[in-house]
Amino acid sequence: MSQQRVALVGLGSMGGGMARVLVNAGFAVHGYDVDPQREAEFAAVSGAAADPAALADVSAVILVVVNARQVEEVLFADNRFGPGGIVGCLSPGAAVVNCATVPPAFAREMAGRIGPDRYIDAPVSGGTARAASGDLAVLASGSPAAFERGGAVLEAMAGTVYRLGAEAGAGSAMKAVNQLLAGVHIAAAAEAITFGMAQGLDPGQIISVIGDCAGNSWMLQNRGPHIRDGDYAPLSAVEIFVKDLGLVDDIARDARFSAPLTAAALAQFLAASGSGLGAEHDAAVAKVYARNAGLTLPGDTE
Amino acid sequence: MSQQRVALVGLGSMGGGMARVLVNAGFAVHGYDVDPQREAEFAAVSGAAADPAALADVSAVILVVVNARQVEEVLFADNRFGPGGIVGCLSPGAAVVNCATVPPAFAREMAGRIGPDRYIDAPVSGGTARAASGDLAVLASGSPAAFERGGAVLEAMAGTVYRLGAEAGAGSAMKAVNQLLAGVHIAAAAEAITFGMAQGLDPGQIISVIGDCAGNSWMLQNRGPHIRDGDYAPLSAVEIFVKDLGLVDDIARDARFSAPLTAAALAQFLAASGSGLGAEHDAAVAKVYARNAGLTLPGDTE
Repeated sequence: MSQQRVALVGLGSMGGGMARVLVNAGFAVHGYDVDPQREAEFAAVSGAAADPAALADVSAVILVVVNARQVEEVLFADNRFGPGGIVGCLSPGAAVVNCATVPPAFAREMAGRIGPDRYIDAPVSGGTARAASGDLAVLASGSPAAFERGGAVLEAMAGTVYRLGAEAGAGSAMKAVNQLLAGVHIAAAAEAITFGMAQGLDPGQIISVIGDCAGNSWMLQNRGPHIRDGDYAPLSAVEIFVKDLGLVDDIARDARFSAPLTAAALAQFLAASGSGLGAEHDAAVAKVYARNAGLTLPGDTE
Repeated sequence: MSQQRVALVGLGSMGGGMARVLVNAGFAVHGYDVDPQREAEFAAVSGAAADPAALADVSAVILVVVNARQVEEVLFADNRFGPGGIVGCLSPGAAVVNCATVPPAFAREMAGRIGPDRYIDAPVSGGTARAASGDLAVLASGSPAAFERGGAVLEAMAGTVYRLGAEAGAGSAMKAVNQLLAGVHIAAAAEAITFGMAQGLDPGQIISVIGDCAGNSWMLQNRGPHIRDGDYAPLSAVEIFVKDLGLVDDIARDARFSAPLTAAALAQFLAASGSGLGAEHDAAVAKVYARNAGLTLPGDTE
């Protein structure tokens, strides 16, 4: 049996890990990125060239780009892949697996344009560490025919593939629910840690004690240590939550859904970005709280 | 060796469980409550009368009342215990262990009035199930002398006693941090579940899938099922979070600490209380979201 050939577009902190997991799982993976150095590094690992001509032979293309605009551009615009983008290059049976965070309505639109028997709405959650270890949660929806085509590659790069419905959109809706909670919980962790510091508590003690209490969250344990250690190297940047909570806010506004915690958390990430912290780790939202309270955070040299 | 005699004031959903754990641990427990029926039921279990005269012989009194006002009233006001309240009845060596959620400044004041060698600032976290099983987290602070007097009874009714400092106030500060997170996370869980429902997702599916994602929290898993099942029997009522987030908001205002997520969550609990849901389970904050979005929740018969 010959090696299955797939393409992955977007070799960033999530996609780079996912592409390497697929290589290790035995796939021939053609990796593409706007950054030529990333492309070259990945091609050296995979042994498969970042050649647009290869797209004609892949059974699936996986998109790990930033947002809906990039998805549309990569798939349909006249670009380096050719006139009409990637969709113009693929064989008619190839699956399109979209892992980017997009509005549910956009996922439905893509399924309509590409064909519901080929499109899987497949955003992921778990962060860079789980991406690199092949342990991501995939929040997927799409037709049985589309899973027939693209399900195996999803299974190969994930810990669990949740199949949330037979139509595109359900996966993206669940991802929006997750990003709502993730973004609110990061801001809440920053609010709680700095509030506690203002009351004389130690940040490390807060994280460990609350870990045993009803106020615990995945984000408190994951992002809290970055605040405790003053470590803002951008595994996931402030701008990602400006984008993702912005997306939730847009969906909520369109649906006339009042989401005050989302709005409050978004305002804090906007303040972080607006004050020059957009490229830092999203835990840097704590710096907004600290500045507003006249507090000095760990690692703050000013 | 004779049985150690202690008193516990406040036999509600938390204190009732804690008092029974102490009985099972071998203490003679005199239990007091404003509700005579609760008192009688507990006296039948403990075999120790709810007699104010018994206070002269206890080694520790544990307060599990609702707020600072009740603490002060029970300890110092002319009341059923006698002129000058409980403090007037105790032997000079008896410890006062305060598990009520109070401002850190109030805890410091109590330690000053009662004596720092006798007062333990000891709020708890974990909910009614962990109270009943003796598995609470105690967020304690106080002097070594105070722990010498009251530490054993704390250990007997808790899973873990965190000793957060040698002065009263640190325990209450950590409890405020926990309540900030707990209250924000309950409102966030309600916001996320109803937002997802508005996008066509199933509440049970949201809780289980997000349990494997970065958006997970203790509260999503603990309160979410109440929303999923339409079960609003008040284990912990909306009014408790009106009180506790109000306390956090007060502390933050006094400290000139800007806490926008706390404020947004408090506004949702206030809307729940103001619209008649104050005595329901705190998960009923979801009804505010549902009403505002024109959604029908599970169990909603209207």
